[in-house]
Amino acid sequence: MGDKKRLRDWERVRSEGGPDIPLFSVQYHWMKNPRNGELLKRLVLETNDWVNIVPLTADGNIIVIRQYRFGVERIITEIPGGLVDIGEGHREAAIRELREETGYASDDWVYLGSVEPNPAIHNNRCHHWLAKGIVKVAEAELDEGEDIEVNLISVEELRSQVKSGEIRHSLVLSALSRVFDLWPNKRAP
Amino acid sequence: MGDKKRLRDWERVRSEGGPDIPLFSVQYHWMKNPRNGELLKRLVLETNDWVNIVPLTADGNIIVIRQYRFGVERIITEIPGGLVDIGEGHREAAIRELREETGYASDDWVYLGSVEPNPAIHNNRCHHWLAKGIVKVAEAELDEGEDIEVNLISVEELRSQVKSGEIRHSLVLSALSRVFDLWPNKRAP
Repeated sequence: MGDKKRLRDWERVRSEGGPDIPLFSVQYHWMKNPRNGELLKRLVLETNDWVNIVPLTADGNIIVIRQYRFGVERIITEIPGGLVDIGEGHREAAIRELREETGYASDDWVYLGSVEPNPAIHNNRCHHWLAKGIVKVAEAELDEGEDIEVNLISVEELRSQVKSGEIRHSLVLSALSRVFDLWPNKRAP
Repeated sequence: MGDKKRLRDWERVRSEGGPDIPLFSVQYHWMKNPRNGELLKRLVLETNDWVNIVPLTADGNIIVIRQYRFGVERIITEIPGGLVDIGEGHREAAIRELREETGYASDDWVYLGSVEPNPAIHNNRCHHWLAKGIVKVAEAELDEGEDIEVNLISVEELRSQVKSGEIRHSLVLSALSRVFDLWPNKRAP
């Protein structure tokens, strides 16, 4: 296998919907491997884009939320975020999720870019937003599937929670890493 | 909603297996919201831990791989990685995946810590490893579902590909961010 071979796209030969599950549209694609012609059935879990928000107060503190997460069956610390609704822009989704989950609002939004949460199985992006100068304007409006605690912490406390592993949600760390130096002791230049 | 309320765990009332799909074990949990007593059916996609590797040569270059990813239907740039096999340690999985996908090996492995890829829906972690002083010891051994290009690039080129968005896989950026300063222009102190 040469290091500089010409990589080719796979051919999607056939697609078929999979079983109904919540949150995702299950799709099966029969894909032809350009290297050997093998036909393989591949799973894709289609979903809308996601968004999360780094909420900062004017004096440099940050809002984190704590909520029970069903995958890991534990209360975790993270930042506000959620699903972009159909027909909604991701900026609007960020404004809405911050308001709903925390009651805070901002009129100074900075786009931090996006990542692909898992390009092997999902088709979507997660957009990261920074909300500066946030102020509390209302009570949180939680839906029936949410129970959320809102905490205002310092940047030092945030770094401590990242270092200890209390904050370890990959998409949360992804957003935070564009605002703060989370890993001051880098392993390489 | 007070900012300092006492958050409680949800009670798992009942569990049931969902439909068969590849890669994951689909589980439904009926969970009782401690805030309002509502009973909700929640999806969990159970899977083994994942691992990925930051492979560095003695002179400070890095191995990246390019492969077609079925979720985003595009050839993407990332780092080696994969699923930890049942009964396998994540260090052994990292050594194996680096060897299989690139033909490179190292005798200087540094653990970079782990993240939860998506604690809302998955029960697993992704472990990040740094492989220092890598050398090519064999040809890559690709399975039938893989077609991979191996490229050796400088740290400057890596940073450029992160900045341009060519590298945007969240778990790849998560591993790289513990080795390199990927976002030199932070938005906050």
